[in-house]
Order: sequence, then C-alpha cells, then structure tokens
Amino acid sequence: MNPLVSIIMGSDSDLPVMNEASKILDELQVSYEKTIVSAHRTPDRMFEFAKSAHERGIRVIIAGAGGAAHLPGMVASLSPLPVIGVPVKSSNSIDGWDSILSILQMPGGVPVATVALNGAKNAGILAAQIIGSADEKVRQAILDYKSGLKDAVMHKVEKLNQTEG
Amino acid sequence: MNPLVSIIMGSDSDLPVMNEASKILDELQVSYEKTIVSAHRTPDRMFEFAKSAHERGIRVIIAGAGGAAHLPGMVASLSPLPVIGVPVKSSNSIDGWDSILSILQMPGGVPVATVALNGAKNAGILAAQIIGSADEKVRQAILDYKSGLKDAVMHKVEKLNQTEG
Amino acid sequence: MNPLVSIIMGSDSDLPVMNEASKILDELQVSYEKTIVSAHRTPDRMFEFAKSAHERGIRVIIAGAGGAAHLPGMVASLSPLPVIGVPVKSSNSIDGWDSILSILQMPGGVPVATVALNGAKNAGILAAQIIGSADEKVRQAILDYKSGLKDAVMHKVEKLNQTEG
Amino acid sequence: MNPLVSIIMGSDSDLPVMNEASKILDELQVSYEKTIVSAHRTPDRMFEFAKSAHERGIRVIIAGAGGAAHLPGMVASLSPLPVIGVPVKSSNSIDGWDSILSILQMPGGVPVATVALNGAKNAGILAAQIIGSADEKVRQAILDYKSGLKDAVMHKVEKLNQTEG
Amino acid sequence: MNPLVSIIMGSDSDLPVMNEASKILDELQVSYEKTIVSAHRTPDRMFEFAKSAHERGIRVIIAGAGGAAHLPGMVASLSPLPVIGVPVKSSNSIDGWDSILSILQMPGGVPVATVALNGAKNAGILAAQIIGSADEKVRQAILDYKSGLKDAVMHKVEKLNQTEG
Amino acid sequence: MNPLVSIIMGSDSDLPVMNEASKILDELQVSYEKTIVSAHRTPDRMFEFAKSAHERGIRVIIAGAGGAAHLPGMVASLSPLPVIGVPVKSSNSIDGWDSILSILQMPGGVPVATVALNGAKNAGILAAQIIGSADEKVRQAILDYKSGLKDAVMHKVEKLNQTEG
Amino acid sequence: MNPLVSIIMGSDSDLPVMNEASKILDELQVSYEKTIVSAHRTPDRMFEFAKSAHERGIRVIIAGAGGAAHLPGMVASLSPLPVIGVPVKSSNSIDGWDSILSILQMPGGVPVATVALNGAKNAGILAAQIIGSADEKVRQAILDYKSGLKDAVMHKVEKLNQTEG
Amino acid sequence: MNPLVSIIMGSDSDLPVMNEASKILDELQVSYEKTIVSAHRTPDRMFEFAKSAHERGIRVIIAGAGGAAHLPGMVASLSPLPVIGVPVKSSNSIDGWDSILSILQMPGGVPVATVALNGAKNAGILAAQIIGSADEKVRQAILDYKSGLKDAVMHKVEKLNQTEG
Repeated sequence: MNPLVSIIMGSDSDLPVMNEASKILDELQVSYEKTIVSAHRTPDRMFEFAKSAHERGIRVIIAGAGGAAHLPGMVASLSPLPVIGVPVKSSNSIDGWDSILSILQMPGGVPVATVALNGAKNAGILAAQIIGSADEKVRQAILDYKSGLKDAVMHKVEKLNQTEG
Repeated sequence: MNPLVSIIMGSDSDLPVMNEASKILDELQVSYEKTIVSAHRTPDRMFEFAKSAHERGIRVIIAGAGGAAHLPGMVASLSPLPVIGVPVKSSNSIDGWDSILSILQMPGGVPVATVALNGAKNAGILAAQIIGSADEKVRQAILDYKSGLKDAVMHKVEKLNQTEG
Repeated sequence: MNPLVSIIMGSDSDLPVMNEASKILDELQVSYEKTIVSAHRTPDRMFEFAKSAHERGIRVIIAGAGGAAHLPGMVASLSPLPVIGVPVKSSNSIDGWDSILSILQMPGGVPVATVALNGAKNAGILAAQIIGSADEKVRQAILDYKSGLKDAVMHKVEKLNQTEG
Repeated sequence: MNPLVSIIMGSDSDLPVMNEASKILDELQVSYEKTIVSAHRTPDRMFEFAKSAHERGIRVIIAGAGGAAHLPGMVASLSPLPVIGVPVKSSNSIDGWDSILSILQMPGGVPVATVALNGAKNAGILAAQIIGSADEKVRQAILDYKSGLKDAVMHKVEKLNQTEG
Repeated sequence: MNPLVSIIMGSDSDLPVMNEASKILDELQVSYEKTIVSAHRTPDRMFEFAKSAHERGIRVIIAGAGGAAHLPGMVASLSPLPVIGVPVKSSNSIDGWDSILSILQMPGGVPVATVALNGAKNAGILAAQIIGSADEKVRQAILDYKSGLKDAVMHKVEKLNQTEG
Repeated sequence: MNPLVSIIMGSDSDLPVMNEASKILDELQVSYEKTIVSAHRTPDRMFEFAKSAHERGIRVIIAGAGGAAHLPGMVASLSPLPVIGVPVKSSNSIDGWDSILSILQMPGGVPVATVALNGAKNAGILAAQIIGSADEKVRQAILDYKSGLKDAVMHKVEKLNQTEG
Repeated sequence: MNPLVSIIMGSDSDLPVMNEASKILDELQVSYEKTIVSAHRTPDRMFEFAKSAHERGIRVIIAGAGGAAHLPGMVASLSPLPVIGVPVKSSNSIDGWDSILSILQMPGGVPVATVALNGAKNAGILAAQIIGSADEKVRQAILDYKSGLKDAVMHKVEKLNQTEG
Repeated sequence: MNPLVSIIMGSDSDLPVMNEASKILDELQVSYEKTIVSAHRTPDRMFEFAKSAHERGIRVIIAGAGGAAHLPGMVASLSPLPVIGVPVKSSNSIDGWDSILSILQMPGGVPVATVALNGAKNAGILAAQIIGSADEKVRQAILDYKSGLKDAVMHKVEKLNQTEG
C-alpha cells in the first residue's frame, strides 16, 4: 500500500525518539514511510523530497529535528501538505528550547504543527487524526484509542484503591 | 454551507488575534464558524462543544487561549478531531511563555498542533492544509497562496533594488 | 471518618511525588482520600469528581500534574473549593517550567493555590492550614509542626558546632 | 466586624495591583484589613504582624510583593495561617520571574499559596474559598460568582454571534 | 566593483536593522550587495543564491532573520562561504530568543557566525575583519575604526569630567 | 581570635557548597565562624543573629541558601554589615534560577552582594577583599592569591605545550 | 578629600542608571569619583585604571555595564579591591539577562559583588557598608539610613490608613 | 609552517571541548596553535596575546570559555582579527546560558563570531571558511567536507532502508 504519512528526521540519532511515531501509526493502522532527510547536510535531497511528497500520495509529513531545527520549517515552505514538527532534545540542544523555538515560531504564511518536546507519539496520533478528518475508519481508530487511554487510567485507579484501601 | 473548521477562543479579548484565522480561511475559501468557549468559565459548554463537534461535520478545530491556556488541550482530550492550538499573548501572560508551554507540552496520547505565539493566521492555513490533504481544490488554493507569497517577496526585491541601485 | 482533603493526580507516575502530601497529612492527623484523575485521558471522570467533591464533604483539593498540567485548573473551574496545585517535574516536562506555568498562570476568576515544583509536602501542610483556619485542633498541630522544624534545625546547629569546634 | 482576611503588601507602589484583592472581597462580602508591611524596610513590624495575626482573628493572609519578594514567605514562616502570595510585576522586577520564583519556590515545611503574576483578584477569591471551606454562606457566594462568570461569557457569545451572523 | 559581501534578509521589515551592516561597510570601504531572500517564501531563490554566491566573487554572506530564522543556517548548508547570522527581534519574535537560538545552535558541520540580537553593525565589522584577514588595507581600516571607538569614549570622559568637576 | 566573617546557611545540606568559603578564608588567614540559620524554620534565631552580628565584631556576613532563598536578604534588612549572598543549587531549586533571583533582585535600600551559583569560594575571597579594603595584610594575601592563580595557569600552559609540541 | 569609591561605567548611556550610586554616596557622605571606562573600546585605559586604583587610595570599585558586560569582571581580575557589579538593562540587552549573567557568573578566584538589574543605588549603599565595615562613622550613617527607610514606610502606612479608614 | 589559526581557551578543563576545533582543522589541513589564555587569571598574558596575534601571522582566533566568559570579547576588543567565540558548558555554567550570552551579546563595534554551545568543531570549520574565503585550496577542502557530510547521511539512509524494508 502507498504510504499516507512520511516520517522524516534530520539524523539517525533522532531514531529512538521518532520510532514512537511509527509505532503508534502501526497501532492505528495508518500506512507510512520512514527515512532520514537532513536540511543542513542533504539540502538537495530535502528540496526534492518536500516538493514531490504530495505527488507521491503522501498526505501528512512528520519531521523531527533537534537544535537549530530547520527541517520541519523548510519542508513546510516547499510542500502544500500539513507538516507536523517534532522538537527533539538532541545531544547538542539546550534543554530543548532551541529545538522548540526554531520549529514553533514560523513566520506568517508557513505553519508547522508543533508537538511537545520529543512528542513523536503525539505526532503520529495527530497525523492519524488528520487522515481521520476525512476517513471514517481512521477516525474510529482514534476514538477506540482514546477509549483505551481511559481504560488504562481506570485500571490504575483500581490498583491504587487496592493498595491504599 | 456547513462549516468545516471551528474557530474557538477563551475570551473575546482574543478576537483581534483570532480574526486572522478567519480572514485567511475566507481567502482560501474554506467554511468556518467562530465563537467563544471558555474552559475555565464555561466548562460545561466546552465539554458539550468538544464532544459533539465532529458529529456536526466539523473536521478541524482551531482553539486560541492565553496564560494557563487549557482550552486547546481539553478540547483535544474530548474530540477525535485534529485540534490546532494558538498561544495568545494575552494581558495576563508572561511574554507568552505560559500560553505556549500550556498548549504545546501535552502528554502522550492527546496531541495539540501548536502554532507560533499569536499565530492565528498560520492556524488558518494549517486547517486548510488539513482539509486540503484530502480535497484537491483546497490543496490547489494552498499552492496558489504559496505562489502569492513568493510573488510578494519578489515585488519587494525589485523595490529594494530600485532604492539601492 | 469522611475525608476532608482529596489528593488527586494526573498519572500514577506522579505517585512518588504526591505521596509526600498524604504522609504529612497523616502526621498532622487530617483525613484524606487519594486517587488518579486524568484531565486528558478521563475528562468525564474529572468533571464528575470536581463538580461533586464539595457535596461529599471534601473541603480542600490537592491536584498534582506535570507538563501541560490542566488538572488543577480544570478542577478549580468546576469546584467551589480551594484547589492546591502541585507542579510535577514529570519525564515529559521541560525542567518543570511547563508544569509551573500551566498551573500558576490561571485567568482572573479561577485561582489555583500553587506550591513549589514537586512541593507535595507543602501542599499537604497548606491543606492542613486551610482546615486549621477554622479548626483550632488542626491549627495547634500546625504550630507544633513549626516548632518541630525549629528543633530539627537547632539539633543540626549543635551537631555542626561539635564538628567545627 | 473583625476582619477575616489581612491584605498586606511590601510597598505602596503595589497598591494598584493589590486593590483587586479588596474589591473582590467586597463583592464576596468577606471582611478584610489592608496595610503596608515591608519585610526589608520594616522587619520588626513584619515579625510582629505575622506572629500575632491569627490571635487577632485573621484567618487568611494575602501578601503581595515584587522583585526578590520575601514578604509572603517570611510571613508564612512566622504564622500558622494559610498565606497567599501575589507576585507583583514591580518596576524593579525582571518580567516578573524574580517575584514568582522567590514566592513560589518555598522549602519543604513552609508553603505559600502562590497565584498568577499580578493575580491579586484571584488571591481574593482564593481567600474567600478558604473561608468558604468551612462557611456555607461564603461558599454560596463563590458558587454565585462562578455562575456570574459563565453568564458574562454567554453574553459575549451572543454579541459575537450577532456581529458575525 | 564586484561586491565582496552579500547582505541578505528574510523580509523587508528587517531593513531598518540590516541597514546598519551596509552603513559600516560603506565606512570601512568594503563593497557589498543587499537584497531580500526568504528561506520560507522564496526557497528556490534562496537555493539559487546560496549555491552560486561564491562563484560570483562574494567572499562573506551576512544573513538576517527573525523568529524561527532559517535563512542563515540554510544558506550556510548550501555555500562554502563564511555566513554571518544576525538574529532580528522581529514583531513575531519572543523577545529575540527564537531568532537567536534558531541561528546560533547549528549542528556540527554547518557553522553560522552569530552576532548579537539586532547586531547588524557588528555583522558588517565582522565581514570586514574576515576580508581584512587576507587584505592589509581592510585590516588597517579596522585598526583605524577601533582607534576611533577609543577616541569617542575619551571625548565623553572629558565631557563627564567637566560636568562633574 | 574574634571572628571577622560569619558564614551562615539555611540548611546543613548547603554545607558541601558553603565549606568552600571557609576553606579559602583559612588559606587567606581571615578568621570566621560558621553555623546554620534558617530564615524559614528559625526566624527568631535569624532575627537575633542579624541584629547583633556587628556588635559581636563581625565585619562581613556570608549567607548561602537555595530555592526561594530569603536568608541573605532578610539578614541584610536587619544588619548594617555588608552581606554576601551565595545562591545554592539545592535539590528543590529549578536549575538555580530561583536561588539567584531571590537573592540578587533586592529592592532599593537593601543590597546583597551576590556571587555566582554555588560560588561560596568567591564569597570567601570577596569577604577577604572587604576586610582587606582597610587592612594592608589581608590585601597582600589577596595579591598573593591572585599571583598564585596566574602561576597555576602558566603551569598548565607549559604542560599543554609539552603534550602538543 | 581623596575619593574612597570609584564609580565607573562602560558607556555614557549608563549614566542615568549609575548616577543613583553617586547620589546615595553623597547622602551617606562617602567620597567618590565617577568616570567612563570601556572594557571593549578602551581596554588599555581599563587595564591602567584597574591595576592602580588601590594605589590611589580607592577602597571599593563600582562598575556598571550592559549586554555582554565584561567591565566588572575584568576590573576584578586586575585589582585586589572588592568590585561591585551593576548589570545595566541597556538598549542592546535582552531584558537584562545578558548583563546579569556576564557579571554574576564569574569563575572561582575572581568574585564580583553583583547587585540587582539597574541596582546602582544598592551598589552605592553596599560600597558604604564595605567602608563602614571598618569605619564607625560610615556604619552609623548606614544605621541612620535604614532607620529612615522604616520611617518612610510607616508614613505611608498612616497615609493608607487614612484613605481606607 | 606558521599557524594561521590560534585556538585559545580559558581553562584546561575546556580542552575536551576545544580539541574538536583542532581535530577538524587537521582534517581540513589548516595550520593552528593551541594554548590556554585566561582573561581572569592571566589578564596580562591575554593582553599581550591579543595585541600581537595578527603580527605573528595569525589570521583567525578561536576562543572558548565558560560561565561569565570574557575571553572571546576581550580578545576581540584588542585584536583586529576575526574572533570566533565558543561558549563552553563548563561545570560552573547555568546550562550554558551564561556562556552564550556573555560571548554573543557584544556591544556595537566589537563583534565576536559566536557558534553553538560546545560548538568547537563548527568554530574550526568557520575558521577554515574564513581562510578559504581568500584561499582557493582551503575552500575546496570545505566543499569536499560538505560533500562528505552528504555521503555520510546517504549511507545512513540506506542502512535505515535495509532495517525497515
């Protein structure tokens, strides 16, 4: 099946964080591709990727990067697709503030949908919500997922009650 | 026409900022509704709104709020729709940091697509991109809009050349 | 005995921090209950809890949460009781700043009594002070507790004198 | 009538902010006193005040201060009463961060119930909630106040509907 | 004369700040060109500019931008020339922190020589120092400029002496 | 010999940091005393200490504290002596920012001579400089100490030269 | 009379802030000199000044500077005298954070006694306290000054009582 | 061969960070020297070094320092050469913010080319780019280096494809 979501990241050191996005897309049964595209070390590859992603059937892009993170914003400038940015707390980041601000504070005209620091799981869910916005089956998967979140909490409530009671 | 996008905000003092979202949706010809829903002063209304929005045909929610901004995150916890959060630099905000962090840093499972501080225009564009992800006509409007951004810069380049030349 | 204080938290991962609140309430002999209520994963449970707590005889609520911490503020919006918020430095928090600001910076009309980062012990003491504000016996327990703080310091002063002297 | 709440502040320059506390207490019909007590310029007065307030029938103290704000914490160290701290963005404050952190980050054993920057109105409401925790009449005033907040929002919703409709 | 320095900026709103760079280059008699290149609105123009600047005889690039400022870093990724980044405190910037961090915190391999917030004058001097590093005449202009800085201070010292004496 | 410098700290957990002050005073042969005085847990002891220190022959006070650190400022409000404040990065501190701001940002009229985070060694040197400002022998010890700092660097320079050469 | 205190600043634009230091020294009858010494624009003058100040009878140096403020620290590295640093919120400073951190965070061995942002008045008082540490007459002036601070507050207390009473 | 680049640092504890600069200069075949120069502990050595470096044929200076880092700025004030500053996250630094701000925020007239926190590798590359700005051979080394960056990413892309495929 053609992937609907493209997960890219600036460096293979972002993989442990970004794999949370693919795991949740697996769980929500949304197809995806996953690769490395560096804005700073492979700018031509980045241009090529961003300009053509929508032509390949991709419907949402998830881009993760750390430090002075230009990948999500540059892809957003080149693609008409919604781009979700994941600020990664990489080894060269100052507590994540640089990653967050260089992804979030995009100028008027070129939005990036930013999620929490290292929030790749939420990026995956958001991508599914975007697909689900026009796809009843995926939306149902989201509703089921939310229901599961609630059940997990209620299970812990009972466990705590037993410990304390 | 049934609105596809719902623009809500925590207070009428957020209107000058949030009107940028409706203006750009007008320009991109995406239908929307716009109202006030306060998480802290009208929690019942907020619950009602968030739980039923997708049943009314809404496909994306844009929520703006300032200070300890709980509206976008609470709506995201109650709705299966993608929620775009606009941190507003309101009068009681500390340079916007509180608005940004209380919208951006959502826990795993409940994403909010956060845009820049006061970035309601980008929230509108992002909403259109989400609609356009499954609607060829809206995507074309996005492509045209991007083309217009470029033309506006090129016009300024020429103007600067004349001044300096 | 009916509990006077309700200690709630957004996740069971907050338990190690929040247990400091119950420990000190045990010491001050103030009755309490303790459970998990997630604003984002169990919003209905949170609504139900917050709207009815005062009807069950609860007189103070202590709510701990991390990251974009909406639990204390949402409970405060739904309950007439004083709500004490404990910002938790959870694993997804940016050095605690997000937890602090999303609890502290509540809009006019809906206060949360915020204590220090991870300050659950102080939340417990503050709850006792609130009960003690109209209950002579609990106030005396507070006065005794303060006296004990002083004695512990004086003991360390003497120990240091012996080491240095 | 003997005042139940004592509103103190470090300087008369804090009056414009702190008057919001007395206004809302007037509205909620909770009695109060209001004066200036400087931790740094009148330390003896501060000691005297803090040690005896509860003996005079005061049940809650609201203390506002800016910069390196020691008043709320020092009063809390000397009194068994619940102390609400209002960080004031005074002229010598760095965007309010110093006021917030020197009030909020109290050590274990000596809590200060901190409200938002310049949040004196919320301090007043919180004081009333504390009184109301053991006083049915004041709690009802809080419930009525919350109801009024909701009505004010609904009025603005209608007004916006008319403008947009 | 062929320009040695290229001054580019993301928006014409950066002109008042960036003109300080051209003024000082005029004073130091170093040739330059000045234009608008937006990473986000004219990415193709930016690619073209950055890849060819060194082939046109440009020896240093000064790039100014605000908010999530990607222009200096992207140009640095595409050009072998030294790139000086000027963080601009633009209207959409959070006190300049976003501009600074998204320019300064470049990953290993792709440096940007960052100057102070709004420090376009220093960017011009630095560009001249770079040229002067292999050009005796320009270095002498730098030495003369430094001598002038000293004279200006000494003039103020005398003036203050007269006022105070 | 009567001590000239008094080293106090809010908690015995500050000892490992504050011992750096006594060590350097030993080295500079300036007499001192060292004890625990908690502004929040032993306010009476703090008052007594601060009001009488100058009458006992103390000429400089060094006060270290962490979190909402009120000890240095309160002592400064009660004593005519110069007070040196050491912000301690204690376990309950937010990266030291609270300690720094609650010591540094004192209001007009009541200075605290603040040194770097955990900078107790520098507090000791500063105390000696203050004594040395009117005591030729102590000033000479400072000059010798500075000379030693230089020698230590030059030793490392030579060592590096040998490694690299 | 030979000045005991030397007030220096990096730029004449710091004069409005730094004049608060000389005003209070006038009031406390401590002699001083006041001039401009720029670490960055007149480094030779700064070296000369710092190395010889103690030989001219100066006993305390007050140094004010903004932005990357190197003047206080460099003077402290060159002089055995106590150096008081005043972080100035100059036009090129980022809300004063740069001024504060580049003065406060001196390495071990070279202290600067840092006061609050723009706290030149407190720098003057601290200089007098240092002189007064070994000079009974100046210490008495400090005690009188503190007494005056208290009287001014008490006057405001009475005024507020009359307004509210 | 006479060194073209001089790498200096404030302390031998900066060596592990600063060695990244010499390693990359080795790789790019640009000659350098490396030594310790402390602004605060060896100010005379620093003056001597900075004033004469350009006379010895040095063309670029790289200066690394942590905390209140004055070395890069003071050297820049004394030398006509381009100075690259490396903020070092030293043990006494507050998450690197002090190092960054005291190097970056230089006043108008005295630029420091600041790179990322601990970004000594990028300082080395930038030094080579400055040399390469007037030296075809070094520029070619830079172009080759950039080509290598791209190859390394493409190698990781393939590796990831195999893992995921």
